[in-house]
Amino acid sequence: MASLIQPRVLKGFRDILPENEIERSGLMEKITKVYRSYGFVPIDTPVLEYSEILLRKSNGETEKQVFRFLDNGKRDVALRFDLTVPFARFTAEHESELYFPFKRYHLSKVWRGEKPQAGRYREFIQCDIDTVGSDSAAADFEILSIMRAALAEIGVKDITIHVNHRGIFNRFLAKLGVAEKSEDILRSVDKLAKVGKEEVKKELVEYTQSEEKADQILTYISGSTDFDSTLSMIEQMAGGEDSDSQRMRDIYNMMKAAGIEATYVLDPSITRGLDYYTGVVYETFLNELPSIGSVCSGGRYDNLAGLYTKTKLPGVGASIGLDRLLAGLEQLGKTGKKGSYLDVEIYCMDKSLAVHYQGVAEKLRQKGINVEVFPEAKKMAQQYAVTDAKTVPWGILIGTNEAEKNVLTLKKLATREQFENLTVEQAAEKILSEK
Amino acid sequence: MASLIQPRVLKGFRDILPENEIERSGLMEKITKVYRSYGFVPIDTPVLEYSEILLRKSNGETEKQVFRFLDNGKRDVALRFDLTVPFARFTAEHESELYFPFKRYHLSKVWRGEKPQAGRYREFIQCDIDTVGSDSAAADFEILSIMRAALAEIGVKDITIHVNHRGIFNRFLAKLGVAEKSEDILRSVDKLAKVGKEEVKKELVEYTQSEEKADQILTYISGSTDFDSTLSMIEQMAGGEDSDSQRMRDIYNMMKAAGIEATYVLDPSITRGLDYYTGVVYETFLNELPSIGSVCSGGRYDNLAGLYTKTKLPGVGASIGLDRLLAGLEQLGKTGKKGSYLDVEIYCMDKSLAVHYQGVAEKLRQKGINVEVFPEAKKMAQQYAVTDAKTVPWGILIGTNEAEKNVLTLKKLATREQFENLTVEQAAEKILSEK
Repeated sequence: MASLIQPRVLKGFRDILPENEIERSGLMEKITKVYRSYGFVPIDTPVLEYSEILLRKSNGETEKQVFRFLDNGKRDVALRFDLTVPFARFTAEHESELYFPFKRYHLSKVWRGEKPQAGRYREFIQCDIDTVGSDSAAADFEILSIMRAALAEIGVKDITIHVNHRGIFNRFLAKLGVAEKSEDILRSVDKLAKVGKEEVKKELVEYTQSEEKADQILTYISGSTDFDSTLSMIEQMAGGEDSDSQRMRDIYNMMKAAGIEATYVLDPSITRGLDYYTGVVYETFLNELPSIGSVCSGGRYDNLAGLYTKTKLPGVGASIGLDRLLAGLEQLGKTGKKGSYLDVEIYCMDKSLAVHYQGVAEKLRQKGINVEVFPEAKKMAQQYAVTDAKTVPWGILIGTNEAEKNVLTLKKLATREQFENLTVEQAAEKILSEK
Repeated sequence: MASLIQPRVLKGFRDILPENEIERSGLMEKITKVYRSYGFVPIDTPVLEYSEILLRKSNGETEKQVFRFLDNGKRDVALRFDLTVPFARFTAEHESELYFPFKRYHLSKVWRGEKPQAGRYREFIQCDIDTVGSDSAAADFEILSIMRAALAEIGVKDITIHVNHRGIFNRFLAKLGVAEKSEDILRSVDKLAKVGKEEVKKELVEYTQSEEKADQILTYISGSTDFDSTLSMIEQMAGGEDSDSQRMRDIYNMMKAAGIEATYVLDPSITRGLDYYTGVVYETFLNELPSIGSVCSGGRYDNLAGLYTKTKLPGVGASIGLDRLLAGLEQLGKTGKKGSYLDVEIYCMDKSLAVHYQGVAEKLRQKGINVEVFPEAKKMAQQYAVTDAKTVPWGILIGTNEAEKNVLTLKKLATREQFENLTVEQAAEKILSEK
């Protein structure tokens, strides 16, 4: 016999065991439900693409992290590292088959060969939504509204969504005469929460060559007391009202019309380091656990698929970082401990009744009850251990006498309460009444 | 400006557009629901694994087809080509954390670099269930029952599941004195439907060196009139009752107890060419379209994870070939044409009412209605074109007068029937009553 192969996964990869996968897929189902309810539709794209398509726009950092190789046909291919680039390629390729505005959701795995660290994996799930083909306050607002609704659906209601507008910020920097340094400045401001005000100021002085300008930027990003007054303040500092500040005002009015404005703050320090955002940007923090960082972020870009088509497609989107969110929920003790989807287990008390058990199971199934038959007459302790692990609420016990009389004993497994001599119909009724 | 990159997917790969992805994910959700209802639980494993783990047991054919490469850490890795091998590795690696019998489902993508042809892709979805750690009729029967139930859930009820037992067949071949040729013979018999009886007989004569033995094999695989008599016949030809034929009888009795026996035939010509099956084997055909081949197959193996652990884990499983099944449903005209999950669209008749529309939308959402606000005041024809593509059943029209009076016009888009001057609550009621 050949020697055994050590069973192991690759560094930075992981298996997900049932209890955690039940939790994770439950979150994904709820997020999907909300995405659908706003009119977003699913698409699918290959996990493997031409490297040329995935990597043209990326910087060196992405390139180093990507899983890239020559396939058997000598094509230069790579595993996708996000869902946005494939979506851009998809939109350009199928432009004539789509309608616009096109609103798609995509929940799927992506791969990055990052240095593995606590809570960071090389394979992880992104939950993306994007609307392309509309540059409107309604499209911006919708993404902001759906972020709140999706998190609420999974029980995460104590959140703050920080919103900002890159256009207003850039106009302010231009007015200050430091437009050519805007990328550096945005990147520096983006680090505010991480490195603190003093460090940021040092950098700003370096970029602007002026203590006064650095102070003005710090005043700008500190904002004011509420959404309205912060908006007035930054609008003023940027040189007065324009279409960008009007856009923010429209969005805020929509939040108020929907009665959900309390979840949002206008935070002029939010910049989202990435270069391609051009309009609103946003990040979402758990109020009870802000330290884990943003669990849902995104923004508006003015040209999604410019690498692949001449059609200019403005868009706005967001992505929920499912694994970070899950880690946060775990820390907050807000994850479930469900071991299966079963309502009831029919224990195997007597091997000779194996056929009888299947008949009972089928009757229960026809009433919409999730039922498992323990397949072998193992010791009861062993059978109970399995239903404990699977967190089954009810058990059914049928011995020879009961089988003859066509009755059963129903047991509430948490309390060990027993209900004897029930018909299958009576048992079904009881199980369904507490489902 | 850099030249455009041609947007395209790799040969043998494909994008799935919304209408088809809605269909496909709908099937997966229904299949998952049934898997769960029988007590199966989900796991997840990485799409990339060490090549050593994936390929040890495979033959040269698999090796040629697999996407294999050296990663940035010079590890020899490959994309999984099925869900069974990773499950075997998973079971061995987590043996101490699992309970047995362990029943898992896994619906996910796998990759094979096969020569692309109509309906065959290099990336496709498998929908697997397996029970490991139980060698019992109940476990065998459960998989057979779930195959029927899962297909019924997606509306595919006109099917026949062909069942056989490899053990009985092998005993028969041993009695015939041709045991050492059993692999060749099984492979030959497996081709019966494809190449016809004459061709198979030619091969059998070659393998057995006897026209008489070839005829006996042909008699065996032809079976008799019904389950019972076929079982008696093959049991007889194999030398009388033993545990294997008793197993088949137990399974058949369970089918009868559950009242589902009409879906199954005992078909001694089903062998499932793959070497690792040792007990029951089965294939599923659409009665209206048998020519597309089996849409759901599987069987029992006696040692799932033998490459990775000394623990002997017998198991039984099945896999639904989702893409083949979908192709079949399409041919039969049984796929839906749903463009979104929306109940209602609020058209944008007047840009100045954009904020008002969001308030109405939120009220509808709170009643569980899936609603989209058209984000811009485009021409109505353009707005209707989008809701046509998204197959939205209802539209809401609100002009300035209606907004002032807080009413709306509800339009049934298929019939153009209009209901005027409704409050939001009245509209919600109407929409929900026909949902």
